[in-house]
Amino acid sequence: MENVERIVDAVLGRLFVELEASGRHVHVTKEQARRLFGHELTPKRPLSQPGQYLANERVTVVGPKGRFENVAVLGPEREDAQVEISLTDGHQLGIRPPVRPSGSVAGSPGAVLQGPRGTVELRQGVIAAQRHVHMTTGDAAKMGVKDKQVVKLRTLTDRPVTFEDVLVRVNDQFATYAHLDFDEANACAFRPGDLGRIEP
Amino acid sequence: MENVERIVDAVLGRLFVELEASGRHVHVTKEQARRLFGHELTPKRPLSQPGQYLANERVTVVGPKGRFENVAVLGPEREDAQVEISLTDGHQLGIRPPVRPSGSVAGSPGAVLQGPRGTVELRQGVIAAQRHVHMTTGDAAKMGVKDKQVVKLRTLTDRPVTFEDVLVRVNDQFATYAHLDFDEANACAFRPGDLGRIEP
Repeated sequence: MENVERIVDAVLGRLFVELEASGRHVHVTKEQARRLFGHELTPKRPLSQPGQYLANERVTVVGPKGRFENVAVLGPEREDAQVEISLTDGHQLGIRPPVRPSGSVAGSPGAVLQGPRGTVELRQGVIAAQRHVHMTTGDAAKMGVKDKQVVKLRTLTDRPVTFEDVLVRVNDQFATYAHLDFDEANACAFRPGDLGRIEP
Repeated sequence: MENVERIVDAVLGRLFVELEASGRHVHVTKEQARRLFGHELTPKRPLSQPGQYLANERVTVVGPKGRFENVAVLGPEREDAQVEISLTDGHQLGIRPPVRPSGSVAGSPGAVLQGPRGTVELRQGVIAAQRHVHMTTGDAAKMGVKDKQVVKLRTLTDRPVTFEDVLVRVNDQFATYAHLDFDEANACAFRPGDLGRIEP
């Protein structure tokens, strides 16, 4: 039976990509972590992408019109701070985030981060992450897609949707998952374990 | 020039449907309006659908885990109360609304409505409205679709999406508009005036 399950996984993995919904979260630099928490980030649990983790530390994100408390911080620390929110979140904060690939923060709006030990004023870094698929080199080859290719993704969910402008990111440090934000996840009525299919 | 504009509108109307985003809102019966407000609904401004209006009156919607204050009430009153929320709203209220066509409330979850004069406990009526296109008979004939047909709708928006399971509702009392909830509107980065195209 264990073999059967492995074969089923391999077949499904050739046809489909597992979907994940990313809630709002924050990336900080080491220096910002020390200012916010008095120390660097500490891991609470690993995420699906190898090496990435949910930190024990949490922050409040403050915008001109609202705030979110208890927002997840993901580690390890990065070279640049980044606040990833949905467009719905943007309305509540009073910030209009551009839709950008992760890491592309130049010229994006800022926000204030509050931690238990201090406050960090970000001049930029608030984005709505462009929907994307993380892929290993092997999976990308099997599915016939390349790094930075933009594809369509049809969700096999309760309310099926085909998302256009989905960015493929290939790296052997990745695990193969499609990432949607909560607006997108709710628009297709995503539930954990749901699959999607990449379309040309 | 006025003629040119009319021709442009006619051409676009043959190819595309204007999109609208529906925020969370409530429909009540006359008797419920009297209990909540002390009188029947009074119109504040007309909506895109002829005869429908945004009421001056507003309610608080209360669920097991949260509440929304100042929620829009749409008139005229109906035979059955209905609370239309997004799946995102459902998470905040602690209610899991089924995705249903408007008017189909049997067996759906309830909620509490609070008005300035009283409270109404709904045993059912909370739904996530199935995405849908209102169409006049003429527009439906021109686009080759029928009442109750389920179609795909591709949005011509910043983040294009093709929504499946979009319900066509044809009635000469309607004006032709596609209605999305806020999750769907944000998932495709809708802005007022954006168009969609019905696909088979």
